Amino acid sequence: MISVGLDVGGTKVLGVAIDVRAPQTIVAEGRVPTPEGGEGLVDTLLELTRSLGPTPHAIGVGVPGLVDRAGTLHMGPHLRRMHEVPLARLLAERSGLPTVVDNDANCHAVGEQAGGAAAGYADALVVTLGTGIGAGIITSGVLLRGANGFAGEPGHMIVDPNGPPCPCGKRGCWERFASGTGLGRLARDAASGGRLEAAVALAGGDPEAVRGEHVTASARAGDPESQAVLDSLAGWIALGLANLVNVLDPAVIVIGGGLVEAADLLLPEVRARFAALVMAGERRPIVPIVPAELGERAGAIGAALLAASRQEEPGRAHSSR
Amino acid sequence: MISVGLDVGGTKVLGVAIDVRAPQTIVAEGRVPTPEGGEGLVDTLLELTRSLGPTPHAIGVGVPGLVDRAGTLHMGPHLRRMHEVPLARLLAERSGLPTVVDNDANCHAVGEQAGGAAAGYADALVVTLGTGIGAGIITSGVLLRGANGFAGEPGHMIVDPNGPPCPCGKRGCWERFASGTGLGRLARDAASGGRLEAAVALAGGDPEAVRGEHVTASARAGDPESQAVLDSLAGWIALGLANLVNVLDPAVIVIGGGLVEAADLLLPEVRARFAALVMAGERRPIVPIVPAELGERAGAIGAALLAASRQEEPGRAHSSR
Repeated sequence: MISVGLDVGGTKVLGVAIDVRAPQTIVAEGRVPTPEGGEGLVDTLLELTRSLGPTPHAIGVGVPGLVDRAGTLHMGPHLRRMHEVPLARLLAERSGLPTVVDNDANCHAVGEQAGGAAAGYADALVVTLGTGIGAGIITSGVLLRGANGFAGEPGHMIVDPNGPPCPCGKRGCWERFASGTGLGRLARDAASGGRLEAAVALAGGDPEAVRGEHVTASARAGDPESQAVLDSLAGWIALGLANLVNVLDPAVIVIGGGLVEAADLLLPEVRARFAALVMAGERRPIVPIVPAELGERAGAIGAALLAASRQEEPGRAHSSR
Repeated sequence: MISVGLDVGGTKVLGVAIDVRAPQTIVAEGRVPTPEGGEGLVDTLLELTRSLGPTPHAIGVGVPGLVDRAGTLHMGPHLRRMHEVPLARLLAERSGLPTVVDNDANCHAVGEQAGGAAAGYADALVVTLGTGIGAGIITSGVLLRGANGFAGEPGHMIVDPNGPPCPCGKRGCWERFASGTGLGRLARDAASGGRLEAAVALAGGDPEAVRGEHVTASARAGDPESQAVLDSLAGWIALGLANLVNVLDPAVIVIGGGLVEAADLLLPEVRARFAALVMAGERRPIVPIVPAELGERAGAIGAALLAASRQEEPGRAHSSR
């Protein structure tokens, strides 16, 4: 059974065709720029699907935003002109194929569970630390979707009511601190305070121009001030992970997203701080905190698997009275 | 089928015998003081079970603390000398009956879902606001236990890293703010700042003696300063609930525990603040926030139902690789 998975990002769409019996084997792959607007997206996704070979049995799509259980994208903060797009319905009508649309972090989690760092765990938390924060929660082997399909959005968990303002309108959301954006802010704060000379030099001498990659590069070259900024980021990552583990009790935490490229610099400190922050840390088994393994294809692979598995589902739970 | 449910509290154990086909009908009921130590607790629970009538088909126990999937109590902060007590095994050995032991907030949630405020919802969050905070999470109709059975402990979610110290060793845990203990602290802060005259009068004139019940009594009598303290408490309750809804996306939130006695004074403000704090509040269905309905028997009823349902489970998920 061939299933196509399409991972919609802010700038590009990555598509894969997989044989669901061997999901690690990618039959075909392609990528195209992300268009503007819902109609344009449907055209683009169908063209990309056709370019991947013979008609598949199902199509799965991951999108960065709030997607309900019917596959309607309610909002996608990093997509242009895409609010209230009934993406699954439009794609199914035009393709004639079973179509599933879900949040991209959920797809990422399904991919990592099928053949990545969460493989073999029935209870896993897969967190993507990029520009923002996404999460896919797997409990007892099943993706936790929630009543509306909106579960797994810890980025807007408030961790400091006096923290910096968030574009969402609140203050102190976790993703203000523990994302790539958070690293940039921590770096500029340190640089404008006269620290971080090595990273500022990499940024051309302008403290305001310091970005996360300058900090990780100078930390990797041995600069202690840059490592201190990363340790501060690690503290915020650990705080949010501890909050989530207190609620969800996963057996493993998988970290994906852009920050995973700095996993070697970040994760040792994240693990140490997490152990001190999680409830009853001394009385529970250690929760491994590990980098994602499938890289950029995890979301597309997961979307393809979700589409294939939905085909086999006997029924869905109802959440209204 | 008769099942006995025993809800262990800090001062008393409440026991019920129910017919699981009609869980609202309590066949027998009794209560005894909570003893000290694990062995004493086993004796007490068996005696209470015998006092409830003929030998039941199963025994369920809810305890306030960290209980693993095998029914071992790892720690119970509000119980005396009860660490690492293999309660389910000891009870099963001595009674010869199938025995289930779970966290009391989980039992409470199962009770409210069976015949209380969460009835008919497949995705429900049941939060108990008492001295501390407990929670039972139901997703797709099933209690979310997590890999170890430790899920549903949002009381130690950090919501302000600069907040007051918590006995757990961290700072700014949600239950420092949003529990009965949190109300007492807010009240004493206000009273020692020269406010809350009405509540201070009820406390005999000593600002340090003001407790939550003085505040709710004077608010109910129309004192605006007391209501302002409750509104502040409501803000903290709403903040944590919004964090949890971002992660779990339940269709309903049920509030139990001691603070539910002030539901009329608290919940309107909790609902208003929650709507502003939850992610994409304007794009998601309203999540009803309602008081628990079963009162103090919810935990015992839920424990009895858990014991009966575990009897029927075909198998359990494994969470190790």
